[in-house]
Amino acid sequence: MYMGVKERRKREKEQRRQQILDVARELCMRKSYFEVRMEEIAEGAEVAIGTLYLYFQNKDEIYATLCEEGLDILNRLIEEALQEKKDSQARLEAIGRSYLTFYAEYGSYYDVLSFVGMGFKQIGLSRELETRITQKSDAAIARLETVVREGMEAGEITGGDSKEVAFFLWGLLEGLIFIHRRGYMNAWSVDLASTSTKAMDAINRGISG
Amino acid sequence: MYMGVKERRKREKEQRRQQILDVARELCMRKSYFEVRMEEIAEGAEVAIGTLYLYFQNKDEIYATLCEEGLDILNRLIEEALQEKKDSQARLEAIGRSYLTFYAEYGSYYDVLSFVGMGFKQIGLSRELETRITQKSDAAIARLETVVREGMEAGEITGGDSKEVAFFLWGLLEGLIFIHRRGYMNAWSVDLASTSTKAMDAINRGISG
Repeated sequence: MYMGVKERRKREKEQRRQQILDVARELCMRKSYFEVRMEEIAEGAEVAIGTLYLYFQNKDEIYATLCEEGLDILNRLIEEALQEKKDSQARLEAIGRSYLTFYAEYGSYYDVLSFVGMGFKQIGLSRELETRITQKSDAAIARLETVVREGMEAGEITGGDSKEVAFFLWGLLEGLIFIHRRGYMNAWSVDLASTSTKAMDAINRGISG
Repeated sequence: MYMGVKERRKREKEQRRQQILDVARELCMRKSYFEVRMEEIAEGAEVAIGTLYLYFQNKDEIYATLCEEGLDILNRLIEEALQEKKDSQARLEAIGRSYLTFYAEYGSYYDVLSFVGMGFKQIGLSRELETRITQKSDAAIARLETVVREGMEAGEITGGDSKEVAFFLWGLLEGLIFIHRRGYMNAWSVDLASTSTKAMDAINRGISG
């Protein structure tokens, strides 16, 4: 009986935590991160402001947690995409597809993530929070770089430096998504899926060993 | 004598306008556009708030003017880059270089521009201001698309749709700059110039007719 209550409380706590994160993600998408206030998050999640602070120390911690959730999804998609693919070109294409899927199906996480360290206005997260996000973000890049390196070792990919090749493959999709997200493709009647496929094909031809 | 005074006043007015824009650009780089206040711009430019409103109706108009200045520079760089280059690959590479130069040498304009319509938090400029910016931005894309189309007509470029090829060339550099701007390249000891060159080479091989 006692354990039942404890279990239920734990489950309720987890549900409330998730509700807070959902509201925060929604708010971060609708307006600037800087404009989102803890009071609004509490209100949206239907908890008292004091309760909100029992779950998260501050707004940055909520934000960092959302980034981590997003990166966990991305890393899972990448691993799933790599399960069956054998040669390097197919593996690179699979990673590319998983990035596009992440953008298409988990767009709210993509938006939150693409805000990290935006150069012209750093958020200024604590070193601890930044480290937490950076580790999961590095895992995704490292996975891509490994596939490129293995392809080079197998003689299937040329282009010199595996890090550089990994970065320009990533850059290609990041840029296409960026341009799409800002509405330029719609304005020019250009399709993201078709353009990405052709871009990946072209770059695959350009780097085949 | 009368003309002299009129001329001087006109010059002073232009100088003050430019000073306002310089301060605004600086502020937009240091913090969120949403956080920048007209009072701060006035203070930084050493003009009364009432004077500021004689020059610009509102913050959005200042922002749009900065975007236009940036796009004028970019379009000039592209035209200069295309002056001497003859074959399609060389012309595309020249446009690519001019975009990288724009980022490297006019980074503050790049930052202001890359903020336009950022998807997850639209600024909500008036239709008139948005149209002003869009025209100059479209000119840059149109120039790139024309070079691709001419290359396809000359049989020097393959890849089907000239708009799609233009967009993925643009996407490639936009993404590399985005990744660089967010600090990922430094963290991985990857060089932007070298990576861009290799990326452009690879994609050039991939689309040569």
